[in-house]
Amino acid sequence: MSEPMSYAFLGPFGTFCHQALTQVAEADAELVPCGGERQAMDATRSGRTQRSVVPIENSVEGGVTATLDSLAWGRRLQIVREVVVPVGFSLALAPGVELSDVERVGTHSHAWAQCRNWMADHLPGAQHTPTTSTAEAARLLSEGHGGFQACLSSRVAVDMYGLTPTFDDVADNKGAFTRFVVLSLPGHVPQATGADKTTIQVRLPHNHPGALHALLEQFRARDVDLTRIESRPVAGRPGGYGFSIDLAGHIREERVQAALNGVYRTCEDVRFLGSYPRADGRVNHVGDTTSDADFQRAREWVQALLEA
Amino acid sequence: MSEPMSYAFLGPFGTFCHQALTQVAEADAELVPCGGERQAMDATRSGRTQRSVVPIENSVEGGVTATLDSLAWGRRLQIVREVVVPVGFSLALAPGVELSDVERVGTHSHAWAQCRNWMADHLPGAQHTPTTSTAEAARLLSEGHGGFQACLSSRVAVDMYGLTPTFDDVADNKGAFTRFVVLSLPGHVPQATGADKTTIQVRLPHNHPGALHALLEQFRARDVDLTRIESRPVAGRPGGYGFSIDLAGHIREERVQAALNGVYRTCEDVRFLGSYPRADGRVNHVGDTTSDADFQRAREWVQALLEA
Amino acid sequence: MSEPMSYAFLGPFGTFCHQALTQVAEADAELVPCGGERQAMDATRSGRTQRSVVPIENSVEGGVTATLDSLAWGRRLQIVREVVVPVGFSLALAPGVELSDVERVGTHSHAWAQCRNWMADHLPGAQHTPTTSTAEAARLLSEGHGGFQACLSSRVAVDMYGLTPTFDDVADNKGAFTRFVVLSLPGHVPQATGADKTTIQVRLPHNHPGALHALLEQFRARDVDLTRIESRPVAGRPGGYGFSIDLAGHIREERVQAALNGVYRTCEDVRFLGSYPRADGRVNHVGDTTSDADFQRAREWVQALLEA
Amino acid sequence: MSEPMSYAFLGPFGTFCHQALTQVAEADAELVPCGGERQAMDATRSGRTQRSVVPIENSVEGGVTATLDSLAWGRRLQIVREVVVPVGFSLALAPGVELSDVERVGTHSHAWAQCRNWMADHLPGAQHTPTTSTAEAARLLSEGHGGFQACLSSRVAVDMYGLTPTFDDVADNKGAFTRFVVLSLPGHVPQATGADKTTIQVRLPHNHPGALHALLEQFRARDVDLTRIESRPVAGRPGGYGFSIDLAGHIREERVQAALNGVYRTCEDVRFLGSYPRADGRVNHVGDTTSDADFQRAREWVQALLEA
Repeated sequence: MSEPMSYAFLGPFGTFCHQALTQVAEADAELVPCGGERQAMDATRSGRTQRSVVPIENSVEGGVTATLDSLAWGRRLQIVREVVVPVGFSLALAPGVELSDVERVGTHSHAWAQCRNWMADHLPGAQHTPTTSTAEAARLLSEGHGGFQACLSSRVAVDMYGLTPTFDDVADNKGAFTRFVVLSLPGHVPQATGADKTTIQVRLPHNHPGALHALLEQFRARDVDLTRIESRPVAGRPGGYGFSIDLAGHIREERVQAALNGVYRTCEDVRFLGSYPRADGRVNHVGDTTSDADFQRAREWVQALLEA
Repeated sequence: MSEPMSYAFLGPFGTFCHQALTQVAEADAELVPCGGERQAMDATRSGRTQRSVVPIENSVEGGVTATLDSLAWGRRLQIVREVVVPVGFSLALAPGVELSDVERVGTHSHAWAQCRNWMADHLPGAQHTPTTSTAEAARLLSEGHGGFQACLSSRVAVDMYGLTPTFDDVADNKGAFTRFVVLSLPGHVPQATGADKTTIQVRLPHNHPGALHALLEQFRARDVDLTRIESRPVAGRPGGYGFSIDLAGHIREERVQAALNGVYRTCEDVRFLGSYPRADGRVNHVGDTTSDADFQRAREWVQALLEA
Repeated sequence: MSEPMSYAFLGPFGTFCHQALTQVAEADAELVPCGGERQAMDATRSGRTQRSVVPIENSVEGGVTATLDSLAWGRRLQIVREVVVPVGFSLALAPGVELSDVERVGTHSHAWAQCRNWMADHLPGAQHTPTTSTAEAARLLSEGHGGFQACLSSRVAVDMYGLTPTFDDVADNKGAFTRFVVLSLPGHVPQATGADKTTIQVRLPHNHPGALHALLEQFRARDVDLTRIESRPVAGRPGGYGFSIDLAGHIREERVQAALNGVYRTCEDVRFLGSYPRADGRVNHVGDTTSDADFQRAREWVQALLEA
Repeated sequence: MSEPMSYAFLGPFGTFCHQALTQVAEADAELVPCGGERQAMDATRSGRTQRSVVPIENSVEGGVTATLDSLAWGRRLQIVREVVVPVGFSLALAPGVELSDVERVGTHSHAWAQCRNWMADHLPGAQHTPTTSTAEAARLLSEGHGGFQACLSSRVAVDMYGLTPTFDDVADNKGAFTRFVVLSLPGHVPQATGADKTTIQVRLPHNHPGALHALLEQFRARDVDLTRIESRPVAGRPGGYGFSIDLAGHIREERVQAALNGVYRTCEDVRFLGSYPRADGRVNHVGDTTSDADFQRAREWVQALLEA
């Protein structure tokens, strides 16, 4: 009988990350809440857990810099799956409190930023009390600490701490989502499904004008689409940029291999962070000169000339 | 006698933004602290203040998303100046407290993130209590509220609240800085100095592979260097990206005009956010085919043919 | 009453060039046959004739190097019109001669090259006697000189010398044509018709790998199609190349001006050789970001920012 | 004992092509003069000779179209060597004739074109009588036929027919040369020497603006220099172009293979015509990301990821 799987995640219990994890984890899995994205990832790096689950991108806020930087500069990890969770907070009141009594609302500052307009409409006078997580706000409210009369938390946290939501799906941007990734130590890359993404991290060779242009050319020359590109300053190198990139394609496809070969040759530093099925299941378009068969025929042509 | 100048800034008094403002503002200027970047910018948009000063980029954390998004999607403002402030916090203790007594440290979560390693070395057991700003942490500490025994704040805040710094220049990354911009309503663009930057905001036409590549080609074709590029998701359009870009050059230079013309023709949306002197004073390199004289000669050649 | 127009052409009378000229010249025009393409062009350069008509491209043989080089390196001339003439020779016999008696056929070596296969099929044993032109072959045959029993000439020459064609439309490649240009001294460029071509001559700055690529980028960046590109060695500079290029577009169109501006800035030498209606009357495609209106809007946008 | 080697060449004996052949052929080789470039090449295609030697490029006139087209569209041959011969004609007079008696000069029309200025200076009144080759002019002159009093021929032809040159090295362009290629049936490609060229023939996929640009990008992306590019119309396809291209590099080098792979994938038709030592012996520059080792490291990196 095999060991149950273990997952580190951005804790505490009750966060959106916990919610993402429930879509992924086996019933008997061990769940290990951590105090930060890096801490969760380090748990997998050290072997404490087999997997870690962390947010990587929010449709409103953009990339999650702690995750991107730890993927970029920490020991290499591999993305094995992505999970997309719609953003929507629950507003819960302390027991016995009326909406009109609320003077302060506890929540994480990112959550507050995403509900600012909603708050201005529904609780115009309420002030923000920052907490270390949205779940922590629910815990403090349920225990009567924290100095606030309401919290903005995930539904799972509200339920966990025995609170009753007054509003669900609170958010300024309807349709907003957070994307989480499931990470493991580097290892076997699964077969391509045709609807895959590949994530890489690249540091540009110089800060010169054409460097990013040249990088992108490696993908364009092989008809490889980018679905995400995030620039990040390189710590300790003012003006230096790293890029976190998602490609539409799988490292077991020739056009992706050709692009990665070119990037490897021409950039200072490139790191492969995994090829995995797209959460949206969309099948990637392959141009009419960049199929695996096209690459193979071209190689065979050259090979035949070399062997003549 | 003219009215004194008025400046909105990311308050409260005692923030690094306040510190940046002191390098810029006239002695008799009116200083208006605001609760967020957008609020400061809106004060200028509404005419409440003539200028606003907000952080736009941190060398460790990257772009300040609230500023970038308000510049991108709010009513247009114009950058008239940039100010660079080295990052370095002061750690101050509550009166009568020893370093060994510190159990919790109050500060903004961004400041905490930037001093995490220093804290692990010097105050290994200390917990973080989040506050709405680093200055607020100093205020709360000086008043004995907040439930923490030390704060990480700017030196100006520590002084302002009568605290004594135990450590100065606390930071994980020596050499880190924050870049602030001074904003006004759109108006006259000053003459070029030769050592200028231009900031624009661009939304890509489609999410197709070559769109970013084509955008960058507009700059490369005229030898215009990029000193910063930040991607941001477009609210409400999953997969849509906007880019905030700093160019080495001034809109009164021909090569920059040619590049902007090309961007305007080929992108869905481009917004000019100002041409202003570089804080580092570095004179921009102009290639041997892209000087103003080169462009003028080429135009005169075509003009002479048209008028023959 | 105005002077009649005068035309130099690649003589003698009876050449395909003469035939092209008859499509262009006024009834009372003075026709001046010349011994070479350069001589015809020099007649216009010196003011001896107002126009010259010379072949520039043959669909089988390619560019006519004497014309291309004189356009490239001689005093500048301007193309005012193009004329396309189908290639098809007439085979005529000397009086009293049977086809089976033909041992030698007189014609210009280019004509021989274009009928080689036809000859192998119809007159397998016949040898070639070179003449200085196809018309000269007809003249010599009609006078009984030249030592050949048949000639391959234009129909107009065969008729002119009182010969009777045994075969018409003799050619290895059905559908072959020669393109002629009508030249004047540089002067007024007519208005665009929407179905125009522009001819330029460019010398590349260095012999480096990317030079031609960079040249072509100037056209591609403005969606300007090339309908012809011919490389020619630069006399006295081994490894130096000049390119003769036809663009789909007119110098009075903004996208063509923008491309020419870029070429002028980045190449050692560029020469404008005329904008004129296409012989095939095909209306040029203009992309959805490169119309005159697109360029004007972009310029107005920058101008408004400069004047704020 | 092995068979002596056999060579077809552009005859007759006494041409510059014969002169080139003498630099290449073994003492006991069989030399087979042919009436045209294609005939010489066909002799090798049919197995009549093991090699053929034909001119491919003249530094003044440009590409030799008969050779280029036969290489492009005839049965595939392989270039095994190139030979460069300086252009310089000898002017010889018929026995007993004075320079002042010369009324007509016999030579091939290409030779006449290359000496036109010299003739205008030294024999201003002389007319041209075309011959099928420069050697044929010497033969006719020596036999008293042809109706001319002087010939412009290679020195080897002048000597061969017992004539005495009055002038040597006659040419309008000092430093002009003709490049010849030695051809065999397709077969083993020799090892790279570091100072090699590779010749290919490419037909562009469509006549669209970016097709040639995209073709050149395949070379530029791998830092492969072009030393020659010639456009040729495609017979029977008006507006269709083929390109004859010489690359600085050898098919046994990775960067050349990568470029050829890309060309093969994206062009309608590409034909390999040989990798062989450069006549000028110049060692090719290899960029700092395109050495064989760079390509191998990149491939090994991807391979290791695939096999994890």
